[in-house]
Amino acid sequence: MKKRLFTPGPTPVPENVMLRMAAPIIHHRNPEFMEILQRVHDDLKYLFKTTQPVVVMTCSGTGGMESAISSLFRAGDKVITVNGGKFGERWGELVRIFGGNCVEEKVEWGKAIQPERLAELLRQHPDAVGVCITHSETSTGTASDVKALCAAIREQSDALILVDGITAIGAHEFHFDDWGADICITGSQKGLMMPPGLALIAVSERAQDIINSLKGQPQCYLSLKKALLAHEGNDTPFTPAVTLIIGLDEALQMLRSEGIENVWSRHERLAGACKQGCEALGMKLFSSSPSFAVTPVWLPEGVDWKEFNKTLKINNGITVAAGQDDFAGRIFRISHLGYYDELDMLSVIGGLERTLKTMNVPFEIGAGVSAVQRALLQE
Amino acid sequence: MKKRLFTPGPTPVPENVMLRMAAPIIHHRNPEFMEILQRVHDDLKYLFKTTQPVVVMTCSGTGGMESAISSLFRAGDKVITVNGGKFGERWGELVRIFGGNCVEEKVEWGKAIQPERLAELLRQHPDAVGVCITHSETSTGTASDVKALCAAIREQSDALILVDGITAIGAHEFHFDDWGADICITGSQKGLMMPPGLALIAVSERAQDIINSLKGQPQCYLSLKKALLAHEGNDTPFTPAVTLIIGLDEALQMLRSEGIENVWSRHERLAGACKQGCEALGMKLFSSSPSFAVTPVWLPEGVDWKEFNKTLKINNGITVAAGQDDFAGRIFRISHLGYYDELDMLSVIGGLERTLKTMNVPFEIGAGVSAVQRALLQE
Repeated sequence: MKKRLFTPGPTPVPENVMLRMAAPIIHHRNPEFMEILQRVHDDLKYLFKTTQPVVVMTCSGTGGMESAISSLFRAGDKVITVNGGKFGERWGELVRIFGGNCVEEKVEWGKAIQPERLAELLRQHPDAVGVCITHSETSTGTASDVKALCAAIREQSDALILVDGITAIGAHEFHFDDWGADICITGSQKGLMMPPGLALIAVSERAQDIINSLKGQPQCYLSLKKALLAHEGNDTPFTPAVTLIIGLDEALQMLRSEGIENVWSRHERLAGACKQGCEALGMKLFSSSPSFAVTPVWLPEGVDWKEFNKTLKINNGITVAAGQDDFAGRIFRISHLGYYDELDMLSVIGGLERTLKTMNVPFEIGAGVSAVQRALLQE
Repeated sequence: MKKRLFTPGPTPVPENVMLRMAAPIIHHRNPEFMEILQRVHDDLKYLFKTTQPVVVMTCSGTGGMESAISSLFRAGDKVITVNGGKFGERWGELVRIFGGNCVEEKVEWGKAIQPERLAELLRQHPDAVGVCITHSETSTGTASDVKALCAAIREQSDALILVDGITAIGAHEFHFDDWGADICITGSQKGLMMPPGLALIAVSERAQDIINSLKGQPQCYLSLKKALLAHEGNDTPFTPAVTLIIGLDEALQMLRSEGIENVWSRHERLAGACKQGCEALGMKLFSSSPSFAVTPVWLPEGVDWKEFNKTLKINNGITVAAGQDDFAGRIFRISHLGYYDELDMLSVIGGLERTLKTMNVPFEIGAGVSAVQRALLQE
């Protein structure tokens, strides 16, 4: 059975990236590796649209978020976090773990926070020193307007802006410098088309100043201060995941040769086709502000998630992501983040049709895939 | 030019491990991956000689050491650390970062701490709650007698015993349970023959009790409590480096089929042959208690390290490790940790001979390689 992965991390890894990582290992203090790391550092700046350092850490995306929180804030610091899903919730958990005074704004799952609301929060909390937002909330497939959010924050406050870009970087337009973000994090196993194991963290000039002057939290391995210092010499403070960084070099060159603007619009196109395919099969979309990385869909009424997932996976080789928390068994999520093209959308919607047929859910055979074709070819 | 890596991490990765990691990626919440992780968990117990959990974290060895220190100790706790090199020094740095009251015992580089001295320290500091030791100090190629050290500690005190096994596991005999260690850490890029990116941490029952009851340091990603909880379900608390864990599964199966006792004795044999080869070329060994993982050698008098290293690397394709700190430019280190066999010792000593010849250092051509042969074949 041919297997197809449509999950928002890990996402499929291109064959040339896999092969590049299978080459004999080299030592991380060798000039050969340092040249690769320098190119990776340059390409990450291109990807995040920044002139500032983007450091590479060997850890998950959560490790990257913890690195930012523990490197930037002291106990007692007031930090606003926006919680519209599992990953927005994690910002709040991290702020509290490190003794921060967390002002958590809960947002209904599937909805995006509005800039006016964030501005209002900042007026209520003029002493907030940080705001943590999520660009694309993976658990709900919901995107927020980070450009407008950053502008609203900047207008009210000097608070640092921390952006969880974990499933957004490479899928959604993003300009780290121009929009005025201070931290943006992504993980290797997302839009970067890599296996998991690396977090990438962009750090603004004023965030660097704070990190370098702050007598902060007890930390070592996840210290942004150490990572920034090593970055200056195209190095890492601790032994990095050498093979993953070599694979990342290959993946970044692919993104660069496609052109980041084209990568963004490809994701928008695929997301649009996926949504239209689902709707043509009578399925309802979950998010009112859908991400270009992942499309969350309500399970058709009366359909059992376990049976549905088994049919999709075992009979059709397709892996999608389940719903989480309150929405476990009620929604599922189709990822089109990373190494996907237009024909892949036919596979996933075609697999959905086959699954619905097996489960005797009424729909017009071919309606999904032809909607995908129309969405992609009648632009 | 054929390249040969003789560095103590990264160490060479077997071809079948590389190829296994190059297979299409799978999702970490899939039954397929959880089966792999369960086998890895079982094989790690075999490797560490323990019935207790050995957790897998996506980070470097230092990340693993930090995980142990921050999960086990509170600020103010008195912890004895043994500093006989760069990595013993790191124990002390970590204890101090997390507010511990560090009693640091400095040991001359190239020498091993004696059990009597450790017992004496514990008598002087009966309130010490932890002792951090290094099994094989990579920077000096020096092994300590961990069995005797553990016995000496246990006789005096209930202090927790933390063993840096980073370059020892897979090279030196080690019995986590029988010797009474509480923590032992290794990294994937060492005796496990893997690329860097994973730390493996064994945790004793009493260490687990402390971790689970302690209201400890602010931490999240490196929390042993979270890692242990996830381990119960053959899971990880955060997205792990999936491809590295799959490669580790392959590498562990190789170690298991060789038999860990055979792996230990292979390392002892290779270390012996390497030492005799060096001595036959008139070179002096650095350590009075040499590790089986890495052999540190004094540079011959009048030989410039940069020139020597260039000749070894550029003309002969061989990468060894430099000396560190006070011994930079004065010693070099030959690793035989991980995926090496007896014929590899001929390559490295043969390459040394060629380098000495190019640099006009007097020696008898063939003396090194024939000493290797004698060491291996006249046992």
